[in-house]
Amino acid sequence: MRIAVLGTGTVGQLVAERLGELGHDVVVGTRDVNESLSRVGDESAQGFGDWARSNGRIRVAKLSEAAAGADVVVNATSGEASLAALALAGDANLAGQVLIDVSNPLDFSQGFPPTLFVSDTDSLGEQIQSAFPGARVVKALNTVNMALAVRPQALAGGEHTVFVCGDDETAKATVIALLQDMGHRDVLDLGGISSSRGTEMYLALWTRLMVTLGTGTFNIKVVR
Amino acid sequence: MRIAVLGTGTVGQLVAERLGELGHDVVVGTRDVNESLSRVGDESAQGFGDWARSNGRIRVAKLSEAAAGADVVVNATSGEASLAALALAGDANLAGQVLIDVSNPLDFSQGFPPTLFVSDTDSLGEQIQSAFPGARVVKALNTVNMALAVRPQALAGGEHTVFVCGDDETAKATVIALLQDMGHRDVLDLGGISSSRGTEMYLALWTRLMVTLGTGTFNIKVVR
Repeated sequence: MRIAVLGTGTVGQLVAERLGELGHDVVVGTRDVNESLSRVGDESAQGFGDWARSNGRIRVAKLSEAAAGADVVVNATSGEASLAALALAGDANLAGQVLIDVSNPLDFSQGFPPTLFVSDTDSLGEQIQSAFPGARVVKALNTVNMALAVRPQALAGGEHTVFVCGDDETAKATVIALLQDMGHRDVLDLGGISSSRGTEMYLALWTRLMVTLGTGTFNIKVVR
Repeated sequence: MRIAVLGTGTVGQLVAERLGELGHDVVVGTRDVNESLSRVGDESAQGFGDWARSNGRIRVAKLSEAAAGADVVVNATSGEASLAALALAGDANLAGQVLIDVSNPLDFSQGFPPTLFVSDTDSLGEQIQSAFPGARVVKALNTVNMALAVRPQALAGGEHTVFVCGDDETAKATVIALLQDMGHRDVLDLGGISSSRGTEMYLALWTRLMVTLGTGTFNIKVVR
């Protein structure tokens, strides 16, 4: 499939690289291609420019060009930037498309652990669906460290759980198949996009588990 | 130990019965003993009167009498009633005691799934600790259906995770030992009482999992 990954941070890099490895035609979308390609890394993360040069098969394009004609779009921008980035990708380019939203509405302005800038009676997944009603939004992979999310078998042979939420059953089936291709063995369909409230609010537990465990390499298995 | 279980609903009944079975001296605290003992059940739950008659070794007393002199107090009242019930139990009776808070700040006024009446920047666990600063509050077992919480081995041999949050290390050690006596094999200490925000907000995911799975008999295992 032709997949547009919107976002050039670590999350976008990990998703794009893994989808390319699985044989998909991947393009990374960004606001400003030249600015993104000029970015160098620091001790905590690889710069996008370095990443792009070592992943030469993955193209880089403006948000709207990346989204146009894609079969699947992945929102891998930070939660606070997501609505603006998707607006730049373009309502018309998103219409009818499967839009996988892996973002979280995290607000780090008060330090760590972050709070959520929307929760309980709404969710970022729903806000995105509402702002782009033509898109077929599926919330997914927002409950796992992305390095683990794209290579689930790195932990316990993949025996842990991820979730999908969305109003379009066909879109969810497409996403579930992609997650299974990545190695996920337990994908739970939580129902409509409003269930994103559950997976986003879980981040309040996830961040505290990360502190307790001293690593982001963990996940939950729903034992039933 | 002498344990006071505050609350006569299904949660209180399950906790009291299990702690009695484990050999503890259990007293159930309620606002009005005679009114509680006159309660009959319906198709969904056993009435407290019937329960009390079939659990004759467990005493029933007013909230303040139950709490006075207990080694451990369990808040098994509904979240919205917890602060008022604990006030009736009495600040002086709670001072210095281990207070296990199993409640959740659930608001069912808008239907199901419930919202939370406090979240993200505060939690019910913290509100209870703040209202009763002399008590040594430990948030626990609020992430699991109580029938399973008190008999974890009924699911996957007990191979799933529960959490404790609290500012008093000795109190947490007492609670962890009680949970292990119940059969818990994986008790994670999430740190101070403010971590209750994580375990309470997880309820937004728990309620949706319950709908998806069609049962409350499930739990999460933190795979790491």
